[in-house]
Amino acid sequence: MAPHGDGSGAAEETAAAGAEERPVSTVVVVIAMQTEALPVVNRFQLVEDRESLFPKGVPWVRYHGTYKDLNINLIWPGKDPSFGVDSVGTISASLVTYASVQALQPDLIINAGTAGGFKAKGASISDVFLASEVAFHDRRIPIPVFDLYGVGLRQAFSTPNLVKELNLKVGKLSTGDSLDMSQHDEASIFANDATIKDMEGAAVAYVADILKVPAIFVKAVTDIVDGDKPTAEEFLQNLAAVTATLDQTVSQVVEFINGKCLSEL
Amino acid sequence: MAPHGDGSGAAEETAAAGAEERPVSTVVVVIAMQTEALPVVNRFQLVEDRESLFPKGVPWVRYHGTYKDLNINLIWPGKDPSFGVDSVGTISASLVTYASVQALQPDLIINAGTAGGFKAKGASISDVFLASEVAFHDRRIPIPVFDLYGVGLRQAFSTPNLVKELNLKVGKLSTGDSLDMSQHDEASIFANDATIKDMEGAAVAYVADILKVPAIFVKAVTDIVDGDKPTAEEFLQNLAAVTATLDQTVSQVVEFINGKCLSEL
Repeated sequence: MAPHGDGSGAAEETAAAGAEERPVSTVVVVIAMQTEALPVVNRFQLVEDRESLFPKGVPWVRYHGTYKDLNINLIWPGKDPSFGVDSVGTISASLVTYASVQALQPDLIINAGTAGGFKAKGASISDVFLASEVAFHDRRIPIPVFDLYGVGLRQAFSTPNLVKELNLKVGKLSTGDSLDMSQHDEASIFANDATIKDMEGAAVAYVADILKVPAIFVKAVTDIVDGDKPTAEEFLQNLAAVTATLDQTVSQVVEFINGKCLSEL
Repeated sequence: MAPHGDGSGAAEETAAAGAEERPVSTVVVVIAMQTEALPVVNRFQLVEDRESLFPKGVPWVRYHGTYKDLNINLIWPGKDPSFGVDSVGTISASLVTYASVQALQPDLIINAGTAGGFKAKGASISDVFLASEVAFHDRRIPIPVFDLYGVGLRQAFSTPNLVKELNLKVGKLSTGDSLDMSQHDEASIFANDATIKDMEGAAVAYVADILKVPAIFVKAVTDIVDGDKPTAEEFLQNLAAVTATLDQTVSQVVEFINGKCLSEL
């Protein structure tokens, strides 16, 4: 079969190289929950679009503003029109990432949010991690090659200077659409060698990869998956406090990025 | 919180009512696998776009053509750029449905494909079902209301005349990103009262719902989930034969739709 739009043309590579040599200008920050998003909106005094960038009917919300030399676009998938809760999970995350990249052509995507952490891998409540790589743990397709597609392992954009400067923990991130963890999920998360577990990262990474936009993943630990407390309870208990920590780290990340080229991150 | 783009304005309702009173003109058929798609492409002599409708880098392919009074657009998510296998599952299905609706403004979406069937609910190999409703079985979020969002139950567009004329079986469809079925999946599928199980339907339904496009689901059974044979083996064994049956039914559905309004389906 002929390849379709493999996106590996010389022109694109040149464009990408060009982007690495000028300071980052436009950033898209994808945050799934309103509770996670609002502290960042307030800190940077971002303004909600009065006319949506997005089609009628979709609940997605853009908040935007400038900070020093950066155009910041925080995209929140909004409240589900049918159920009224945050549109969490991989489908909404992939859709808003796709639509935001089409509309805004960002230089960099930052997926920020809360995550479960594994204490056996060194995670504690309120730790903020930068993901080194991301993969799915709930797409089991036991047919050769389809199995690898299901796992969908992708490297995050490498930011060694950012990690050093902010003294962030680094770990592998595993993504699935459930807040809990089944035995099957656990086995896959173990196979993914993950330190943190979320519900959006690998979906954002997938779309970023096919559209060739660098993406990084900033995840703050709300609950210990291999601990004693029930996940939902621990998650809700720590959500407010941990989002404050997340907000602080996101602002440090933005501050660090400002004025730098991708290759300097 | 203020509602964001709830898409329930009077103008939209009028437009939808108008669409029901004129014959269906543009149809988008979403099919995840090339093996499932090509018989339909050949039967209707659909032509692959030379210039893609979609952004550079995405593997999505549109085949289009006319049949009598219908503009037919078959959208196949294509081969994954990294792994070379069909881009199956909910993320690609939701992205291509979104991008196709934006580009083509169809009157109707038909999601066609293969599925697992439950013999305990009356399914046999090669049966073709029209889904009455669709839901997810692998999005477990045990927090009030988030649990319902995760399940994401949606009604398919009701087509009583189509069901009667083609003598199709009708059943509930449950969607997840794994080909196999874990115990957790099984419990959710049971709760969903599903007769058939696929990897895309509920994702297509979700996007169709937020964009207010009617969607129907035509699913042909390749494997018996509650039978004795391993799913992957039985699926691959029956795929070619069952796609011929699927193609035949899709063509009958298209023939039936031609010249009719939505309200006559």
